[in-house]
Amino acid sequence: MQMRLEEEMAIKLDANEADESLWDYSELWQIGELLKGMNRYPDPYNIKFKEKLINRISRKEGLTFTVDQMIIGNGSDELIKLVMESFFTAKKLSFAADPAFSEYERLTRIVGGNIEKLVFDNLLIDVPEFISEIKKVNPDVVFFTNPQNPTGQIFNLDEIESVVSAVQGMVVIDEAYIEFSSESALGLVSKYDNLIVIRTLSKAFGLAGLRLGYAISNAKNIDKMNENKLAYNISCLSETVGIYALDYETRIENYIDQVIKVRDLAVAQLDEMQELEVYRSSANFVLFTFDEWEKYQSFKNRVTKTPIRLRFFDDGPEKLKRSVRITITNLESYEAFYKILKEC
Amino acid sequence: MQMRLEEEMAIKLDANEADESLWDYSELWQIGELLKGMNRYPDPYNIKFKEKLINRISRKEGLTFTVDQMIIGNGSDELIKLVMESFFTAKKLSFAADPAFSEYERLTRIVGGNIEKLVFDNLLIDVPEFISEIKKVNPDVVFFTNPQNPTGQIFNLDEIESVVSAVQGMVVIDEAYIEFSSESALGLVSKYDNLIVIRTLSKAFGLAGLRLGYAISNAKNIDKMNENKLAYNISCLSETVGIYALDYETRIENYIDQVIKVRDLAVAQLDEMQELEVYRSSANFVLFTFDEWEKYQSFKNRVTKTPIRLRFFDDGPEKLKRSVRITITNLESYEAFYKILKEC
Repeated sequence: MQMRLEEEMAIKLDANEADESLWDYSELWQIGELLKGMNRYPDPYNIKFKEKLINRISRKEGLTFTVDQMIIGNGSDELIKLVMESFFTAKKLSFAADPAFSEYERLTRIVGGNIEKLVFDNLLIDVPEFISEIKKVNPDVVFFTNPQNPTGQIFNLDEIESVVSAVQGMVVIDEAYIEFSSESALGLVSKYDNLIVIRTLSKAFGLAGLRLGYAISNAKNIDKMNENKLAYNISCLSETVGIYALDYETRIENYIDQVIKVRDLAVAQLDEMQELEVYRSSANFVLFTFDEWEKYQSFKNRVTKTPIRLRFFDDGPEKLKRSVRITITNLESYEAFYKILKEC
Repeated sequence: MQMRLEEEMAIKLDANEADESLWDYSELWQIGELLKGMNRYPDPYNIKFKEKLINRISRKEGLTFTVDQMIIGNGSDELIKLVMESFFTAKKLSFAADPAFSEYERLTRIVGGNIEKLVFDNLLIDVPEFISEIKKVNPDVVFFTNPQNPTGQIFNLDEIESVVSAVQGMVVIDEAYIEFSSESALGLVSKYDNLIVIRTLSKAFGLAGLRLGYAISNAKNIDKMNENKLAYNISCLSETVGIYALDYETRIENYIDQVIKVRDLAVAQLDEMQELEVYRSSANFVLFTFDEWEKYQSFKNRVTKTPIRLRFFDDGPEKLKRSVRITITNLESYEAFYKILKEC
C-alpha cells in the first residue's frame, strides 16, 4: 500500500505517456452514450471510429483512405503481433534494428518466430546498412520505427521508401510518435503492396489506457489481418471515447505543440552539459548518454530516491546501458527532472 | 443508414447477450474515477480487478484463490488463444466436440495449429466417447464447454473430472455460461495441474461490450500465460467498470434468476410443439431442432422479416442445420419470438 501511494505521487517520465489526462470527468456528459450498449458485443469492424480517423487524416494530411484499408488494434502491439500472424511464411523471421521497441522481439517469439536484429553500436540507424542487411537475411516482416525509439531519430520519406522498395517481405512503419514529427509513410501506401503503417492514440492523444492503435495498408493486407484478429478486439468504451477524443483537434494540437516546445528546450539544455551526448529527438522523449558509467550510475541512484521515473536501459548495445530516456510532457515535469540532473 | 436504424430496433436474440444494459448512465457518477488515468498505461496485471473477482468467488463458491492463479483476458477468446500459444507443443493440436464454440477452431488455425473435432450427430456430447477419442488423438489442448454451446448441455463434476484426469495435455473448461447453471470445475484446480477454467463477464454480467474474461489455474500455468500475453491487454475503462459492476451482486443475481425462469418456461413451451426437438439448456439460450427441413426454412424466412435476430447454423452436423438458438434475456423478448414461432 505504501508503494502504491508512492507510485501515485510519482512524476512518471518513463513510458512516453501524457502527464495529465487531456480529458476529464466533467466532460463525461458529452459522451452520455458511453455506457449504453455495454451489454452488446462491439462492432467487430469499428466502422464509426475508422470513419473518424480517416476523416482526420484527410483533413490533416490530405490523404484519402477507405475503411477497408484500416484495422483497429488493442494497442499497436496487437497489430504488430497480427502482422506476423498474417504474413509470416514457414520461415517465421522478423527483422529490426537494435536498439528498437522491445516488443518486436518479444511478440515475434510469442508467435513462434525468430528475429534478426542489426545492432547499431552508436544507437543511430544507418539506412543503407539496414537495407543491405535486410537483403542478406530476407525476412518475412521488417519493423522500422519513425521516429525511432529510444533515440527519437527521424527518417525522411526517401529513406523510408528506400527500405520499403528494397524488401520482399512486409514492412511495418511504426509511427507511434509521428504526431510530434513529420515525414509519415502514409502517402506510400498506394504505391507499395508490402507496406503497413501503424499508429496509436497512446502518445499524442494521451490515451495510453484505452489501448487503441490502428494500421493502414492496402485492402488485401487489411483483409488478411481482419481474418486473423480476435472477433471483438476493441472494448465498446474505448471505441466510444476514441471517437469522442477525435473531435478535440485543438486540444490535441496544443498538447503536441507544448511537447515539441519543451522537447526542443530539453535537447538544447542537455546539450550544454559536457558529460552528456544528447540525441536530436523528433518524438515525445529525449535520450541522452553519459560519457562515463560512474556518472550514469550516480545519476540513476540519485533519481531512484526522488518521485521521478525515467527509463534506464538494461539491455541493448553497450552505449544504451549508459543512456537515459525522459518522456517530455510539460515544462513543470521536465524542470523537476532537470533540477535533479543539474545537482548531480 | 437504413440498415443501421433497423439494427438498432432489432430484438437481438442471437448472441447470448443481455437485452438491456444492466448499468445505466445515471450511475456513472459512482465511477467518477472512470476517466482518470486514461493517459497512463493500465496495470498489466489487473491486481484490483483480480482481487474483486477472487473475493466474489470466495463468497459465492467458498473457494480461495490468489492473484497469481488468475489472468484477465480481452474477452474469453483472447484467453483461448493464449492457452494454445502457451501450451502447444510442436504437434500444435487441439481437440473439441462438434458442435462447439466455433472460435476454438478459428483461433487454433490462427496460432498455426490444427484441430481434431469429434462429431456428435445428435448434438449431445457422450463423455466416455469424448474421452476415448482424446486418448487416441493425444492433443496438446482440449476445449470443453460447460454448459455446452449451442445445446446448453450440462456436465456434472464427475464427468468433468473424468475428462481432466484422462488427458495428458491441457484441458480448458470454458464456463462462459456457468452462472446460469452449477457444477463449476473451479474446485478441481487445486487437484489437477492440467486444468484451466475460463469465465467471462459477457453473459451473466451483461458486459459483452467490455471484453472481460478471466482464467483460473495453478500459478505456474498462469505465469506462462502472463509471459505470452500482450503487455497491456485490458483497457483501463473496462477494468474500472468491471470492478464497479462486481459490487452489484443483487442486480446480477436478479438478472440470472430472471433468465433461468424465462429459459425454463421456454423449454417447457417449445417442448409442447410437435415439430420441435428441444434441448434441456443450463445456459442463457435454448436450442431447438425442426423435424423437417422445410419447416425450418419457412420459420427462418418468416423471422428474417421481423426485427427478431436468432442464431441459425450453417455448418456442423446435419441436425444442427435444422436448429435454431435463441438467447434468453427477459419475458418480453422471449414472448415476441414465441408469437412468431406459433404463427408459423
